[in-house]
Amino acid sequence: MSNHLGQCSAWRELISRIEEYGEPLVSDLFAADSDRFRRYSCALEDLLVDLSRHALDDQDWQGLFRLAEQRRLNEQVEALFSGNVVNLSEGRPALHTALRQPADATLQVEGEDITAQVHEQLARMGELVTALRAGQVFGFDGRPITDIVSIGIGGSECGVTMAYEALAPYAQGGLRLHTVSGVDGRELLAAWSRIDPATTLFVVASKSFTTQETLTNARSAWQWLEQAAGHAVAEQFVGISVDDQAMADFGIPPQNRFFVWEWVGGRYSLPSAMGLPLAAVIGMENFRELLQGMHDMDTHFRSAPMAENIPVMLGLLGVWQISLRGASGHALLPYHPGLRRFPAYVQQLDMESLGKSVTQTGEQVDCSTGAIFWGEIGSNAQHSFFQWLHQGTGRVITELVSPVDEQDCPIDHQALILSNVLGQAEALALGRTPSAAEAAAEHRHYSGNRPVTLVLFKRLDPRTLGRLVAMHEHRVFVQAAIWGINPFDQWGVELGKQLAKQLVPVLRGESGVDQLNPATAGAIDWIKRWG
Amino acid sequence: MSNHLGQCSAWRELISRIEEYGEPLVSDLFAADSDRFRRYSCALEDLLVDLSRHALDDQDWQGLFRLAEQRRLNEQVEALFSGNVVNLSEGRPALHTALRQPADATLQVEGEDITAQVHEQLARMGELVTALRAGQVFGFDGRPITDIVSIGIGGSECGVTMAYEALAPYAQGGLRLHTVSGVDGRELLAAWSRIDPATTLFVVASKSFTTQETLTNARSAWQWLEQAAGHAVAEQFVGISVDDQAMADFGIPPQNRFFVWEWVGGRYSLPSAMGLPLAAVIGMENFRELLQGMHDMDTHFRSAPMAENIPVMLGLLGVWQISLRGASGHALLPYHPGLRRFPAYVQQLDMESLGKSVTQTGEQVDCSTGAIFWGEIGSNAQHSFFQWLHQGTGRVITELVSPVDEQDCPIDHQALILSNVLGQAEALALGRTPSAAEAAAEHRHYSGNRPVTLVLFKRLDPRTLGRLVAMHEHRVFVQAAIWGINPFDQWGVELGKQLAKQLVPVLRGESGVDQLNPATAGAIDWIKRWG
Repeated sequence: MSNHLGQCSAWRELISRIEEYGEPLVSDLFAADSDRFRRYSCALEDLLVDLSRHALDDQDWQGLFRLAEQRRLNEQVEALFSGNVVNLSEGRPALHTALRQPADATLQVEGEDITAQVHEQLARMGELVTALRAGQVFGFDGRPITDIVSIGIGGSECGVTMAYEALAPYAQGGLRLHTVSGVDGRELLAAWSRIDPATTLFVVASKSFTTQETLTNARSAWQWLEQAAGHAVAEQFVGISVDDQAMADFGIPPQNRFFVWEWVGGRYSLPSAMGLPLAAVIGMENFRELLQGMHDMDTHFRSAPMAENIPVMLGLLGVWQISLRGASGHALLPYHPGLRRFPAYVQQLDMESLGKSVTQTGEQVDCSTGAIFWGEIGSNAQHSFFQWLHQGTGRVITELVSPVDEQDCPIDHQALILSNVLGQAEALALGRTPSAAEAAAEHRHYSGNRPVTLVLFKRLDPRTLGRLVAMHEHRVFVQAAIWGINPFDQWGVELGKQLAKQLVPVLRGESGVDQLNPATAGAIDWIKRWG
Repeated sequence: MSNHLGQCSAWRELISRIEEYGEPLVSDLFAADSDRFRRYSCALEDLLVDLSRHALDDQDWQGLFRLAEQRRLNEQVEALFSGNVVNLSEGRPALHTALRQPADATLQVEGEDITAQVHEQLARMGELVTALRAGQVFGFDGRPITDIVSIGIGGSECGVTMAYEALAPYAQGGLRLHTVSGVDGRELLAAWSRIDPATTLFVVASKSFTTQETLTNARSAWQWLEQAAGHAVAEQFVGISVDDQAMADFGIPPQNRFFVWEWVGGRYSLPSAMGLPLAAVIGMENFRELLQGMHDMDTHFRSAPMAENIPVMLGLLGVWQISLRGASGHALLPYHPGLRRFPAYVQQLDMESLGKSVTQTGEQVDCSTGAIFWGEIGSNAQHSFFQWLHQGTGRVITELVSPVDEQDCPIDHQALILSNVLGQAEALALGRTPSAAEAAAEHRHYSGNRPVTLVLFKRLDPRTLGRLVAMHEHRVFVQAAIWGINPFDQWGVELGKQLAKQLVPVLRGESGVDQLNPATAGAIDWIKRWG
């Protein structure tokens, strides 16, 4: 059976309406309905998501709800939470929501008690974290551990780095965290210059424990520590992986091996043992608050009616803007410096999950799927690419995100920040026609109707960060469910890895360049000439 | 006279060819021409720009060259270098190339000797930089300055931050640099926690010297220093602006005021006095090497024949991919951690310059102009959005950038890095059809023909960084010249600023919410409830 959206009557109706009526003006929509703000914003406690500035009318939204029904969104959501095989190409469930379920929840998958397994690892993490923070974990000369070097890349690093910056006020004093992801050696050297080998714990995170960059860095770290101590120091290495044997082969002692599961993808793994370096610096209580925030959003997503359901509304809107209205991007603009790495985190989540051209059943999709996702701290972006957002020829979803609590701003600049958040939202949505005096100055024309979402919350604490992360995870899931694609695999990265592997001996001069593509051969000549 | 591209016969011919022939396979193009790599790569000494993996054949390129002629590209380039008014909406020349001309060059604009003015400011910068580095500039208690806090945002900050990271090995020892751009106060507090007020120089950079964020931060810094010293300390403030009076009003002493000119836009201002904080930490000799690299690229751009001209070829290719082939983005992927901020720098340059919908003569453009520009360190992006690049439904230009010198990699990981650069280029360009065994596995299909540019150079030094910056400046200029848009204004950012200003008193509770758009009013209620 074809999984094409074109098979859906709701989809075809949405397209017909667009062809017939074009896009209404946002200003007309507000003029026609004084209740528009209330009806098209959703809330979860202090978290407000306002979609009223998008140019959809009631019938458009009703059409999207019918589409969700025809694509059996509710059933897909239940399948996700219940541990059904939702990742078809790899034959697995995707159980990141199980990672933040309370201990008394029950979830059996293929006869295994998932909740018990999850809480066993959390308990082990908690023991190590508590001991580290109490100064009860010791390095090779008997002094307590003071620094953690987290070695990982992609999903095994991105979440920890992002959350560590976001929750910096919760990590005062105590352990210092250094992250190493790049393979060029600079980050490793920079970390080494700041740490004492005798008081450093290396945490090596790789789901497969075969990731080239991570293992290369981990081996360099192992040798560095061995040299400093005069002998191998396995006890100062912690591993996080699905593969016990691979960690054993590397030399990680049994008590230092923490486990994740095949059913959690790297980009969904922050609430698992992958979060260990974060938990070590913010403490287990704050880490559990982060999990609680995720669980709050999970519960909301699973139970709230469609029109009040934050991830559902955001996901339907994403499909609308990207597949029906030609948006080619999604710009995430937090007005809080702690969220500096949040756009990069959601970028990975979004683009790796939604950058797909075939459906779960192996057909070419018949519409655009995932867009370019990027972002920047809002105040900085205003002096960078906002020109493009206001007057460029491209269409993107602009998502403005800000805390509203004055205490979240250490100097009295908060009114300035919020005035910019709201001023930009209004300028993007409503635009401005040049005044009579400016009539000839077309460069002063602002067309408006540029898609803008506003996200406000009280303050950036662990629980709110958890809610924001899970909000995007589930928004992505909704988009994938409507498009019929698999958000949990990433086959697209395999080919480049394979080709790279074949080129290593050529670059090392151990084999010739006969069979190479001429452009690759040309580049290798250049490397030999100037390298 | 209409400035529309549709008026150009060369443009219409390009479109006809595409409609008639579609897109050739890159693998077929290489098979048909063994000399393709040589013919579609350009070089400037050790800098190689390889465009051979883009799916254009000889006739496509000839068509683009005819387009450049019909759009009078050469005349526009000469107008730029000669100081003609190329920024029509503001009635100004754009003379960033004059900022890096040698002292013996002559350039008269409206009767003024630009070169002399430029070199006068460079000489003044040189004096301050030399004195700072020799410990001959003193704080309020007589000790020498050890730290510089650079306060600016957008074009007044982005270049310094980017170049400081890129040239970190040239900034060993000596002065420490801290940058403050965000308005929330966190960066300021972070800087204060690391510096001694008695030995810190504040450099306040704002072309107009009215930038809200920058002046807010500068005033907070002034008060902080005043409090620490027990009296105002004007001598520890340096200003950079076009406006002498505004700097005087703030309190900057005459000898500490450095000048830029109306004819240099923020995003083109790194080689001006805006680069002072950078020059202070890398030294004037290295700063002059950076200028020399820019000038090398300027000379190449002004004189090389089209088919060998790096910025011309890149710019034509940008127009081709974006306006004729529907590319909606440009991903810049440096495989060198020093270039971590380079994508953000070029993003500002590109999106602020090219995010325009009207031509220089005030008509709506008749094609897509600037695309979404973003990027990330390549190794990290491979674990993030490369899935999307390989298998997503969107089309973007992927630009892979890497040094080839082994000495630029402190640990022996260089072969790994270059193998990834070349492996990814090949996977994107050539793709792979599933093998017979995988025939049913469409998720393992790589379509290839994804536009990829390769940029290689010997090592990341000041001169090369200068060449890379100027390369993108001129590529952007070429795209704007073909599209007929103004790359030097940014009217799009004005409306949001105005609306924000009007909202400040409302947010401070000093005026009511009567006249507000309902969504803005709704958000303000939320802020009052939870703030």
